[in-house]
Amino acid sequence: MAETKALTTRAADFSAWYNELIARAQLADYSPVRGCMVIRPNGYAIWEQMQQALDGMFKETGHQNAYFPLFIPQSFLSREAEHVEGFAPELAVVTHGGGKELEEPLVVRPTSETIIYSMFGKWIQSYRDLPLLINQWANVVRWELRTRLFLRTTEFLWQEGHTAHATEAEAEEETIRMLGVYRRFAEEWMAMPVITGRKTEGERFAGALRTYAIEALMQDNKALQAGTSHNLGQNFARAFEVTFQTAEGGLDHVWSTSWGVSTRLVGALIMTHSDDAGLICPPRLAQWQVVIVPIHRTDQERTEVLAAAERILRELRAGGIRTHLDSREGMKPGAKYYEWEARGVPLRLEVGPRDLAAGTAMLARRVGAKKEPVSLVGIVARIESEMAQMQALLLEAALARREAASLRGATRAQLIERMEGEGGFVYGGFCGDAACEAEIKEQTKATIRVLPDEEFRSPEAPAACLWCGRPSQAEAVWAKAY
Amino acid sequence: MAETKALTTRAADFSAWYNELIARAQLADYSPVRGCMVIRPNGYAIWEQMQQALDGMFKETGHQNAYFPLFIPQSFLSREAEHVEGFAPELAVVTHGGGKELEEPLVVRPTSETIIYSMFGKWIQSYRDLPLLINQWANVVRWELRTRLFLRTTEFLWQEGHTAHATEAEAEEETIRMLGVYRRFAEEWMAMPVITGRKTEGERFAGALRTYAIEALMQDNKALQAGTSHNLGQNFARAFEVTFQTAEGGLDHVWSTSWGVSTRLVGALIMTHSDDAGLICPPRLAQWQVVIVPIHRTDQERTEVLAAAERILRELRAGGIRTHLDSREGMKPGAKYYEWEARGVPLRLEVGPRDLAAGTAMLARRVGAKKEPVSLVGIVARIESEMAQMQALLLEAALARREAASLRGATRAQLIERMEGEGGFVYGGFCGDAACEAEIKEQTKATIRVLPDEEFRSPEAPAACLWCGRPSQAEAVWAKAY
Repeated sequence: MAETKALTTRAADFSAWYNELIARAQLADYSPVRGCMVIRPNGYAIWEQMQQALDGMFKETGHQNAYFPLFIPQSFLSREAEHVEGFAPELAVVTHGGGKELEEPLVVRPTSETIIYSMFGKWIQSYRDLPLLINQWANVVRWELRTRLFLRTTEFLWQEGHTAHATEAEAEEETIRMLGVYRRFAEEWMAMPVITGRKTEGERFAGALRTYAIEALMQDNKALQAGTSHNLGQNFARAFEVTFQTAEGGLDHVWSTSWGVSTRLVGALIMTHSDDAGLICPPRLAQWQVVIVPIHRTDQERTEVLAAAERILRELRAGGIRTHLDSREGMKPGAKYYEWEARGVPLRLEVGPRDLAAGTAMLARRVGAKKEPVSLVGIVARIESEMAQMQALLLEAALARREAASLRGATRAQLIERMEGEGGFVYGGFCGDAACEAEIKEQTKATIRVLPDEEFRSPEAPAACLWCGRPSQAEAVWAKAY
Repeated sequence: MAETKALTTRAADFSAWYNELIARAQLADYSPVRGCMVIRPNGYAIWEQMQQALDGMFKETGHQNAYFPLFIPQSFLSREAEHVEGFAPELAVVTHGGGKELEEPLVVRPTSETIIYSMFGKWIQSYRDLPLLINQWANVVRWELRTRLFLRTTEFLWQEGHTAHATEAEAEEETIRMLGVYRRFAEEWMAMPVITGRKTEGERFAGALRTYAIEALMQDNKALQAGTSHNLGQNFARAFEVTFQTAEGGLDHVWSTSWGVSTRLVGALIMTHSDDAGLICPPRLAQWQVVIVPIHRTDQERTEVLAAAERILRELRAGGIRTHLDSREGMKPGAKYYEWEARGVPLRLEVGPRDLAAGTAMLARRVGAKKEPVSLVGIVARIESEMAQMQALLLEAALARREAASLRGATRAQLIERMEGEGGFVYGGFCGDAACEAEIKEQTKATIRVLPDEEFRSPEAPAACLWCGRPSQAEAVWAKAY
């Protein structure tokens, strides 16, 4: 990191700040391939932590990982009419293989429903084969015109869950269960509060019966859809003839779900917590939770300090804390502090001769209270407690910020005013008419993020649509969105 | 698993046995996409275990994971002349994106040297940025005409390490280090003995200075290249202008390496250990290391036995042993045994009322000694010891088999005879002439697998080429290969 110029501030230009932060913290880079990004080691390490946490949650809820082909015959996509219509404009198409033109072009998967259901049809015969609970970690490609690192790239990494069930009720239960898993992950791991709810018809996944989502609010008061869970009904089962013998001896199509989150979450993490000094990463997802910076002037000091730093490193690692010792030569401690702050390491331990003489190290926190000496005795427990506090603090702060940027029971004028001004979540009545929804979008650029679940609804249900005044069918949350 | 027909035996038809075993154990399936496979949960679980072990070894040796784009501009491949010549016949090409024809076609990565070096050029400025040690877990595509599940598929999963160094010596050291990591993984995790050595010019990676490999011998006495490590010299650095300021203030091209293993290893694992009853999986890589099968007749027995089985399950899991309790109703214990044998679970614990009364369970091993009762007191330690023994036994057996199928100091006649008959590894002198190597391949179908490292060479260096009689330049190992 040769640059030492300060980042553009969030207040001055949020978008420039975001891009500069990603470059400074070496999280990702533009590639020579249009719309595709390179995820650099610092960014990939966060994704790996996310993967590990989510994978554990998927396995706890009975899912198994599998892998399906990258390529999908073009004809497969057409079998579900809405699905092909939704994805056709975004496809990358392989027309040549092994030096020859292909008889049927292959689509690079934008999502895997079609190829997966064609296999489910082979594997599922009877109700005894159900539920079938599969997850896949994979890359997908959607041809995007306007791209942004992590948020919207032509290729991205994700997981896609695909499950088949014997009844509609079980499929709906699974859809809601996985939405809950995503919510728990967002809150407990990313320290990112989310609203859960249902998408309107217009925002539904192409081919789904119902789409649910978790929605977060970024620091610039724009919403970000952080994960979706779809009840696919029997749509894909019909398109791919996935039938099963029921316990009663009849034949029925399976009921299915799909759900996914992607590397977009890394962008969400950045925009939820970080500040003008760089990345702030919740401790549970940080590549390095603690960095140790040795301080020394003479050679003798150096030997002693490094030996002590190594001991602390070993103790913390043995305690399961992801710790890095920055023993680079020829670099001043201040420059190291600056770099690790930009990279979002939650806690820093500065170790110098005076600290060691006192049996302490200087603890610096990426957020919260300022520096203070901490005893080296019981250092693992102390660091654990500091991390738990920081994790809670980040969630609280993000929640307070979101609530401060939310307006409930809004009028048409207030919706317009907010969308022209500060942004945020605007709650109000919705008549359920797609035409009304479209008109709002056209005039304010706001979309309905979700029809929120009960927990997130306003105490009093709105009586009228905030736009047209007709009776409200459901409360809705509007925002401008990424 | 509805089928109960026995597998074709290895002796009758090794290839049919391999395919039937994969279907029976539900490891993988053919997909509707030409040459592409679906890795089913049972197969993917083995790959996940492999990934976890290898990833730990890569990180221990200082490597970090990153992710580079799937697509590579066609012009990039042409920058390294040998590289493009090697890969051109195997490419899948995207010509259309987002509904339009692309100005420059994109190649689906067959390997990532070119895209990665284009980024290294951006990231590396000075000797302080070196070594740069990167690994990527990804899918790659090589258009194959003849495919076999796991062994050779159009798309496969792999890892590719890519490193840049300041000197040729460091690059060579890294190349050899990673070959050693692969060897250790093959032996310690897969229980699969390998020969390490250098590839001849004809078998070298397209664009490398030198290629090293680990080679294993399957049960049908055909060789399988299980991993490769390449010293790329400055070839790619020159093609992509990856230069750095040396410590002395000069400018030089970096020296680089790449190395990879793939889902092919799952095929290697199957063909190294399995028998006519199905998969045999080394305990360290098994999805389930122990399966518990409850045995009961009355409802009361059922309640007691299941409660005890749950206790054993919890104890083994708490002890870090991957354990599954097969409590399926309406299926006889014998049918469960048969199924878990086919799926390769190393150890089975049968738990019935009489066993419980005696404080024991019946232990059945997938290989080795027959069934015997084991005490439930200290069951974790007992299972650990059984697994360690089995892991060692599998390696020993595979080693003994390989050595029995190896012929050292072979003559031309013996090479021909072996390749027409039983196969195996044939050691002999090699003149170093590519024409001689090609003639041998044409007449016997045998290729030089490696010029073995010292440890694997015969006590006496061969004086003459076994084929042409000219002076031998190096001992070589021939075999027919997958």
